[in-house]
Amino acid sequence: MKKLSVKEARLAGAIGAAAKVQGWVRTRRDSKGGFSFVEVNDGTCLGNLQVIAPAEIANYESEVKHLTAGCSVTVTGEIVASAGGEQAAELRAESITVHGWAEPETYPLQKKRHSLEKLREWAHLRPRTNAIGAVMRVRHRVSKSIHDFFHEDGFFYVHTPIITASDCEGAGEMFRVTTLDMANPPRDDKGAIDNAKDFFGRPAYLTVSGQLEGEIYASALGKVYTFGPTFRAENSNTSRHLAEFWMVEPEAAFFELTDNIDLAERFLKRIVNDVLADCQEDLALFQQHIDKTVLERLEGLQSGAFTRLPYTEAITLLAGSAEKFEYPVEWGTDLQAEHERWLTEKHFKGPVVLTDYPASIKPFYMFVNEPDTEGRLTVRAMDVLVPGVGEIIGGSQREHRLDMLETRMAEQGLNPADYWWYADLRRYGTVPHAGFGLGLERMVQYVTGMANIRDVIPFPRTPGSAEF
Amino acid sequence: MKKLSVKEARLAGAIGAAAKVQGWVRTRRDSKGGFSFVEVNDGTCLGNLQVIAPAEIANYESEVKHLTAGCSVTVTGEIVASAGGEQAAELRAESITVHGWAEPETYPLQKKRHSLEKLREWAHLRPRTNAIGAVMRVRHRVSKSIHDFFHEDGFFYVHTPIITASDCEGAGEMFRVTTLDMANPPRDDKGAIDNAKDFFGRPAYLTVSGQLEGEIYASALGKVYTFGPTFRAENSNTSRHLAEFWMVEPEAAFFELTDNIDLAERFLKRIVNDVLADCQEDLALFQQHIDKTVLERLEGLQSGAFTRLPYTEAITLLAGSAEKFEYPVEWGTDLQAEHERWLTEKHFKGPVVLTDYPASIKPFYMFVNEPDTEGRLTVRAMDVLVPGVGEIIGGSQREHRLDMLETRMAEQGLNPADYWWYADLRRYGTVPHAGFGLGLERMVQYVTGMANIRDVIPFPRTPGSAEF
Repeated sequence: MKKLSVKEARLAGAIGAAAKVQGWVRTRRDSKGGFSFVEVNDGTCLGNLQVIAPAEIANYESEVKHLTAGCSVTVTGEIVASAGGEQAAELRAESITVHGWAEPETYPLQKKRHSLEKLREWAHLRPRTNAIGAVMRVRHRVSKSIHDFFHEDGFFYVHTPIITASDCEGAGEMFRVTTLDMANPPRDDKGAIDNAKDFFGRPAYLTVSGQLEGEIYASALGKVYTFGPTFRAENSNTSRHLAEFWMVEPEAAFFELTDNIDLAERFLKRIVNDVLADCQEDLALFQQHIDKTVLERLEGLQSGAFTRLPYTEAITLLAGSAEKFEYPVEWGTDLQAEHERWLTEKHFKGPVVLTDYPASIKPFYMFVNEPDTEGRLTVRAMDVLVPGVGEIIGGSQREHRLDMLETRMAEQGLNPADYWWYADLRRYGTVPHAGFGLGLERMVQYVTGMANIRDVIPFPRTPGSAEF
Repeated sequence: MKKLSVKEARLAGAIGAAAKVQGWVRTRRDSKGGFSFVEVNDGTCLGNLQVIAPAEIANYESEVKHLTAGCSVTVTGEIVASAGGEQAAELRAESITVHGWAEPETYPLQKKRHSLEKLREWAHLRPRTNAIGAVMRVRHRVSKSIHDFFHEDGFFYVHTPIITASDCEGAGEMFRVTTLDMANPPRDDKGAIDNAKDFFGRPAYLTVSGQLEGEIYASALGKVYTFGPTFRAENSNTSRHLAEFWMVEPEAAFFELTDNIDLAERFLKRIVNDVLADCQEDLALFQQHIDKTVLERLEGLQSGAFTRLPYTEAITLLAGSAEKFEYPVEWGTDLQAEHERWLTEKHFKGPVVLTDYPASIKPFYMFVNEPDTEGRLTVRAMDVLVPGVGEIIGGSQREHRLDMLETRMAEQGLNPADYWWYADLRRYGTVPHAGFGLGLERMVQYVTGMANIRDVIPFPRTPGSAEF
């Protein structure tokens, strides 16, 4: 007898098969006709398989009639056409084996719907719910698309380091990694911590970005990407921040800004395309219960070209609009969420790629353009903004000219000794190159409509919270 | 004019095309006939593209004749059939643009071959060498196979947490993650570190395994896998240990030990199959310069079924062999590398899966078998041993019976309060389940023959070393 997943068993093509199905009970309903309906889910898809359990089953009275939400079962029987209309097929049980019970008095996931906030306390059980199960299937599909897209495009997956001794990446506050005894750390004769005695012989931190190391590999293998965890030790207790999250960072040699934008656009469209094709049932749940604009948004992203707009032109548009913004619109300052929303949601009604930001508000490693007619300096940055989420991708063409890089580092007060290897890339066979970063969780929020970033990662790490 | 990668340009099918090729010079040789041969590599493959640069090129005397190893160039011209025999095609240049020079006096990667040890000091340049470039392409291919295999097999990719507050995983020493000021940490009234003031409100560490959290998701989605960085704060300066490495950990509900072994065997064969199919040129380099047994080993793994052998039978075989072992062979003690080598390399001459180890030498979470005829307790562990590398996979069927789990935890002195959520998985809808772990770096060593694990990861982290 063949084992079928619930996903397989629900297909019309399975009708007539003798099958074994294994999963967890969602509900049981006893019919007056002397049999029971048992809804079984095994995580392979959102929907349940309806099992018809006749009274003739040996353990019908002793066990089947005591099944409750969360019990685990193996059911054997025949897949038959469903009499109802909601699904093509159902399973007429010949035997039901109960592996594990789930006391209804204590099992938290009863039929009553729990809030997403409440479910976070049960992070070990919440993937058994419809919403979080669907999110995690979509998260998987997005991750697979990311690897497929880059592989097919000739990019090599590179694992940049998680532990780094550079405290100089400049993208935010960092976590220290140590094996020193914190209660009694070794100290030098001046009383300072003797970092030479720490595991790595110096202070070490959790990475905030793999970009700089990605540039190393792009300067050797040509096109690479990273996909791994990154960290921020920011004390931000918001629905948009995590201390630990997953980031994708492609980096390509002989790439200029336009190549980079083209790549980002194809990349986002590919992910959305795969999710629309493969996650229809899960998307329908989000559309119905989480965010009524999900499908429209995803189909919209696919259908048109992204608007590409230099920062300077965006400032002109914003300044000329009739909209009353809270924050002033002024060349040289960063755009606020309200400005980005106006551009994507009101003016262009779709994704917008802003480019060529003022040099003064961007990091040292971005390529510096020739001054504009008014003598202002911009860099070849690019931010991809999408309706609903805002910035989903940030990237740039990198500064590959050693002299300009050194000038920018000096301007920003960075110590060249910390970047000796980064400068070497410009010293030996430097090439124009570019890359960007996409936060996986932001992308999963975008395609699911989940409002809180804590609900799109299995085990969120936030200030005060590292349970499980 | 189309841009071609070196890999594409070298194919016979490219002959006749007008092409642009971009990469880095490996060597230049000037012919007496008034032209130069320039070998260009772009990282897409091991081999170089031979560029014929005629003296008619505008910058021939001023630049082309000064090209040295490491310089970056864009070459345009026509792909023509190669007059030599080593490659099908070569590029007859019409223009050569130099993007970056590489002073031969200071650029470390000159024609002279450097030792792998020396190259580790130049981790920012070493991917430009043949050997490390080849390793990293193979590492990419292995990683892609891992994702493809599990996706096609219905497993969902789950990101288990990197930062964990459980210091109880028991698999080794852990790194502490903190934002406390180490020089002046907050202390409670007894002088102890006030961990409540740390970022997560308690001590937090870097994960040593995603298994326990993987079990959570297997108990909801059915079949899942993790693929992420894991950490060991062991002060081991050997060719086999890293402080940071990547691990793959599948976990599946309704899986017993045999299912788990079947999965591991199919998994390893799939990776080897993909590498043999797609990395022929890189493998030839390893075969020639690194390890003359690579191809034989990989083809051997593919061709036969893995031997499956209970620990108890392995002890009998080892005890009955004529081999003189340094360590005694005795039921109840763990096998040593010499024992494993004898089994895989001398006796069975191929992969061996050892199962059902003594309970006393294995962790609390493994499923306990019925006592054997002599009353000895074993657990459903499985170690996959391969010739040359030794243990490459370790796994088990998990203990899914709550009472037995609690007994084992008590035996091993563990605090049940630390495992409340792990016990909940047994309390609510428990199912037989199983999983295993594969260290990515061990696998890359296996398929490349590289002797030192530091040479198969981009930026090795080891005691005293976290540069780049």
